[in-house]
Amino acid sequence: MAGNSFGQAFRITTYGESHGPSIGVILDGCPAGLSIDEEYIQKELDRRKPGQSHITTQRKESDLVHIQSGIFEGQTTGTPIALLIPNEDQRSKDYSHIADSFRPSHADYTYQKKYGIRDYRGGGRSSARETAARVAAGAFAKLFLSQEKVKIRAYVSRVGSILCLKNYKEMDLDLAETNIIRCPDPETASRMIEEIETIRKAGDTLGGIITCVIENCPIGLGEPVFDKLHAELGKAMLSINAVQGFEYGSGFEGTYKKGSENNDLFVQRDAEIHTRTNRSGGIQGGISNGEDIYFNTAFKPVATIMQDQESVDQFGNSTQVKGKGRHDPCVLPRAVPIVEAMAALVLADHLLRFKAYKNF
Amino acid sequence: MAGNSFGQAFRITTYGESHGPSIGVILDGCPAGLSIDEEYIQKELDRRKPGQSHITTQRKESDLVHIQSGIFEGQTTGTPIALLIPNEDQRSKDYSHIADSFRPSHADYTYQKKYGIRDYRGGGRSSARETAARVAAGAFAKLFLSQEKVKIRAYVSRVGSILCLKNYKEMDLDLAETNIIRCPDPETASRMIEEIETIRKAGDTLGGIITCVIENCPIGLGEPVFDKLHAELGKAMLSINAVQGFEYGSGFEGTYKKGSENNDLFVQRDAEIHTRTNRSGGIQGGISNGEDIYFNTAFKPVATIMQDQESVDQFGNSTQVKGKGRHDPCVLPRAVPIVEAMAALVLADHLLRFKAYKNF
Amino acid sequence: MAGNSFGQAFRITTYGESHGPSIGVILDGCPAGLSIDEEYIQKELDRRKPGQSHITTQRKESDLVHIQSGIFEGQTTGTPIALLIPNEDQRSKDYSHIADSFRPSHADYTYQKKYGIRDYRGGGRSSARETAARVAAGAFAKLFLSQEKVKIRAYVSRVGSILCLKNYKEMDLDLAETNIIRCPDPETASRMIEEIETIRKAGDTLGGIITCVIENCPIGLGEPVFDKLHAELGKAMLSINAVQGFEYGSGFEGTYKKGSENNDLFVQRDAEIHTRTNRSGGIQGGISNGEDIYFNTAFKPVATIMQDQESVDQFGNSTQVKGKGRHDPCVLPRAVPIVEAMAALVLADHLLRFKAYKNF
Amino acid sequence: MAGNSFGQAFRITTYGESHGPSIGVILDGCPAGLSIDEEYIQKELDRRKPGQSHITTQRKESDLVHIQSGIFEGQTTGTPIALLIPNEDQRSKDYSHIADSFRPSHADYTYQKKYGIRDYRGGGRSSARETAARVAAGAFAKLFLSQEKVKIRAYVSRVGSILCLKNYKEMDLDLAETNIIRCPDPETASRMIEEIETIRKAGDTLGGIITCVIENCPIGLGEPVFDKLHAELGKAMLSINAVQGFEYGSGFEGTYKKGSENNDLFVQRDAEIHTRTNRSGGIQGGISNGEDIYFNTAFKPVATIMQDQESVDQFGNSTQVKGKGRHDPCVLPRAVPIVEAMAALVLADHLLRFKAYKNF
Repeated sequence: MAGNSFGQAFRITTYGESHGPSIGVILDGCPAGLSIDEEYIQKELDRRKPGQSHITTQRKESDLVHIQSGIFEGQTTGTPIALLIPNEDQRSKDYSHIADSFRPSHADYTYQKKYGIRDYRGGGRSSARETAARVAAGAFAKLFLSQEKVKIRAYVSRVGSILCLKNYKEMDLDLAETNIIRCPDPETASRMIEEIETIRKAGDTLGGIITCVIENCPIGLGEPVFDKLHAELGKAMLSINAVQGFEYGSGFEGTYKKGSENNDLFVQRDAEIHTRTNRSGGIQGGISNGEDIYFNTAFKPVATIMQDQESVDQFGNSTQVKGKGRHDPCVLPRAVPIVEAMAALVLADHLLRFKAYKNF
Repeated sequence: MAGNSFGQAFRITTYGESHGPSIGVILDGCPAGLSIDEEYIQKELDRRKPGQSHITTQRKESDLVHIQSGIFEGQTTGTPIALLIPNEDQRSKDYSHIADSFRPSHADYTYQKKYGIRDYRGGGRSSARETAARVAAGAFAKLFLSQEKVKIRAYVSRVGSILCLKNYKEMDLDLAETNIIRCPDPETASRMIEEIETIRKAGDTLGGIITCVIENCPIGLGEPVFDKLHAELGKAMLSINAVQGFEYGSGFEGTYKKGSENNDLFVQRDAEIHTRTNRSGGIQGGISNGEDIYFNTAFKPVATIMQDQESVDQFGNSTQVKGKGRHDPCVLPRAVPIVEAMAALVLADHLLRFKAYKNF
Repeated sequence: MAGNSFGQAFRITTYGESHGPSIGVILDGCPAGLSIDEEYIQKELDRRKPGQSHITTQRKESDLVHIQSGIFEGQTTGTPIALLIPNEDQRSKDYSHIADSFRPSHADYTYQKKYGIRDYRGGGRSSARETAARVAAGAFAKLFLSQEKVKIRAYVSRVGSILCLKNYKEMDLDLAETNIIRCPDPETASRMIEEIETIRKAGDTLGGIITCVIENCPIGLGEPVFDKLHAELGKAMLSINAVQGFEYGSGFEGTYKKGSENNDLFVQRDAEIHTRTNRSGGIQGGISNGEDIYFNTAFKPVATIMQDQESVDQFGNSTQVKGKGRHDPCVLPRAVPIVEAMAALVLADHLLRFKAYKNF
Repeated sequence: MAGNSFGQAFRITTYGESHGPSIGVILDGCPAGLSIDEEYIQKELDRRKPGQSHITTQRKESDLVHIQSGIFEGQTTGTPIALLIPNEDQRSKDYSHIADSFRPSHADYTYQKKYGIRDYRGGGRSSARETAARVAAGAFAKLFLSQEKVKIRAYVSRVGSILCLKNYKEMDLDLAETNIIRCPDPETASRMIEEIETIRKAGDTLGGIITCVIENCPIGLGEPVFDKLHAELGKAMLSINAVQGFEYGSGFEGTYKKGSENNDLFVQRDAEIHTRTNRSGGIQGGISNGEDIYFNTAFKPVATIMQDQESVDQFGNSTQVKGKGRHDPCVLPRAVPIVEAMAALVLADHLLRFKAYKNF
């Protein structure tokens, strides 16, 4: 009801503001007997953390995860797993200028109107800092899914108008982690990085696209008619800060095609049923069909720019919001692990739901 | 868990297959004291029903809604409202050819694998016929929202590559209901209809885009961080048959812009705070800000084409799926009321959630 | 949120008033591939239906179940199962006397205050007629549980002050179905029947206790800390009309004992771990332990008596509620299948939840 | 699904084991703008904490609550409130004797079978220590309810066979907090304390009854047909460790009465409609009617006794569980605030749900 939980069977509830003592998450529904690799979990957090390169915000947070419960002698016990991440590098004074005014295209105004009160420091609850909790929980989802050999990898496929022209099948996706923008095509990666360096100097920001690819997803995940797998993935992605769009399979592009051009014909391959093409993006009728799942998530340019902008205060008086503070000129490289985490949470949830109903 | 419910406070659960005695829905959470206009509800169903024009399927269903409960002397009583729509024009034999084979880009294969059994007649539960139940429940949502003057109108903005170039603000959206394709620009409507007539003759199908506009949405709807209003709208749209993508506000297009170009500056207008532009699509931080909400939903071309297609049977043997039956060459005109219904269900749910928490 | 659904994985949503066209239920989450025995389902309904003996209400309802969806060629398909039961023997005029006044210890007053409107005919939604839908859905739960050999039997163990002194283990519980009061001890059954005949003549009513016994429940059902198996059973029972209390295992009686007297010691028997005694009622820490589950549900005497009673109308004016209509002098014999149905729904739900999380 | 959340609109999720770094709770759905009195919250915790008197366990925990989020400048912000309570006085070695054996009438065996692994230290997740998190969240619920003047007070009405003979209306319930057993009748309190002192010396334990009284509950709370107010209260109470039974209003006792004796007649009093008697316990048809709500919760005698008991290990071999450690001879005095907390959580949840649907 109040919106801070996600998932049904594999369910997370996150808490925390940018400037409180900590942010964190309770994961309820992680099966027992899973071996926990704390180093892996921390590494996932490190992929998201601020200050990781010169094209991200220079705010420093070590983002260390403290496990509070649910693990005994290195294994999950089936009880809730609480994860706490202390907030460290807080400069609340940096935000005094917005205590009474609303930053353009931020959540300041809507929070004020909805709740009648807001913790303006760092955007409070609307800060993307909250996503660290998702990444931490997502690491558990990934560990759980790795039991089934499910592999989830995302990468930056467009920054502003710098587009990675290669299809995901033409690249080694592991290369995404070898550069700071997280694009598996090194040449495109360089151009994206340059573009961000340029925009940063201009005090402006960029958006773009993250593509996510899921391999080895078991057949049968997704619960029609409302909890179709792609509908759940879509909601998961759209719940990430700054996301404005989602498409899977042939997506918006596919809507220009005819049915005869867009359909995926069934064929037998290696004694198993497959589709010859995969415009369905691995999901048919809302249920995974065993092919690769792939989808795009569109991020708008970061709303905080290093330029002064007109605005109003809470009484409607004209004011100016100063362009200052430490912010990302482009969130995409840091959003890659968030996209993966949310995808993992959706799949883990649906894998459990699938198991509940499997009756043959 | 099993996926046939939508919403939390204003919650629907639908049932029914294409070829059973009926389809229907239970709406739980419709507030008491709402005056019910049965004619209006039926009219909404009529906008979706098959056979309404020569560019839709020629299957005939009267789609009459039978109210089973929850209404007393013309008013809702606060108890569950059950709506039943009999199935009439069933030709189960039309489907014997797919009893053992899988139609390309349909849900036949995934249902078979997920459940180990499927009602192949008319696609069974995966049939878009299920959406009639959504439209019926959505009519109640619209009635409820009309108390608050919320106005929801969708229209076809692209069919294949025939695009309506005008922005929604430049058109009288009520004109959408004056033509059979439901595009408010008469000239574009004619071209879209021609395009569909042509594709129909070729035994092929088309997809496209439906744009939806919501006016007078109260400020404050949407529950961060997961149940952001646009995330819920996105899920709602992606749960509709054949949908492949969703974007709101400046959407995918906006990701090519710089932050300074995409931001919406706050201004005071008529003694109220507004944004000068509305690239945020009426939603900021996941919460409605009082501006128009608008979004696009992408529909793939209909998978059933009047051409024979290669496929396999359940044993993996090669087979052919015949192109026959009565089907839509383009679902978009009939999907307009479905998009509106799902949008109304999301808003009604969030309006109730908002009221629950309003504490000042 | 609005209270008409029960269960999470095996979930029902009921609808319907006493005097509308029908009552019914959607069951979402029944696994696919279950063979359906329609005769069995109807027989369960027959155990609850009115007019079945001279100690129940003489209202006549055939209570025929019409399956609307979810079954194909005799098997469940994994899609929602909608069940509709027409209302037949309605005498709405019988209720005109309470259109403006509130029957003592009924829901008339609270519904009026909560919703601002009420369907007074037959108590509307608050009528125990709603429980027919539960029994229909419960029959599916029982069929599902019978795959695991789970056996659920309830019986009347006390009517007013006529108590069945034998423990459930000392009786053949199947004998409960051989008499009209549903007590497995024939001698006690006769005395209970006499007691009801006497009270009926006096125009008064009786309450009592129903005991329910569940055999062969798999070990491990129940989800601490809030969804403990007995907490869910308790809620299920307390949601039945006229229930005022619930206890399991040694119950209220056990609270007079010392720990050393009440504890169940573990022993090995037939190469399996068991408890020597079973004061825990088959549930420890909220989780089934493989022993018999047993619990008591307390029903108050029926509120509708054949005597005139003082009351007020909706304006607070004194009035009299006439003792008339066709009502049960004691609901217990008809409540036995309701108790079983609700118990089955709880267990089916928890069996699915157990399967979801089973990871070893 | 996994059972560690309670409530729908005012929803808590608890985490933590007896011997991890902390236990805690996330409260999602507490309305914004509530002034928070940290001292009050801590005081509620102190009422539950161990070591508070010579008749409770001598384990020492300061049970200090650390607020992590959701409060800004002394007020709730509408975002999730995370509360963390460090575990302090842990003696894990005290539990090495049960690493491989099962304590009678505890959750050791069922946890082992359900999850395949268990944190045996202090009972792990099954420890009543978890209820500290409930009390902390319940304090927020009480603060919220105090806006509506709702008053919730529980007290010990029976210990073993020492019964408080006075009805709640004959006592000043505030006196309960003036003695260590929390019984508002001083004379009975003394006898209860003596009884516990005696049983403690014998190395044994006692159970009993806690009565809870809710005054000024608004009319209209409770959501039929499944989420009846008493059904939700019942589940809440049954989810507390060691609870074996629940009854409200005239309860089990009332089932011995005739309808004519048990019914509550409506009367007008002070220009408002009331019932002359209140055997319904303030709830009719599952909805609060404005009269006092009262109910009894039955606690079994504590399972941990200071006597050696026969048991088996996980291989089924006979063993003995030693009677040692620091435990309560009777949990009732410490359970009083837990009962109140759970009642407050139910009412806060239903107050929000009521507000969501209020439409006139």
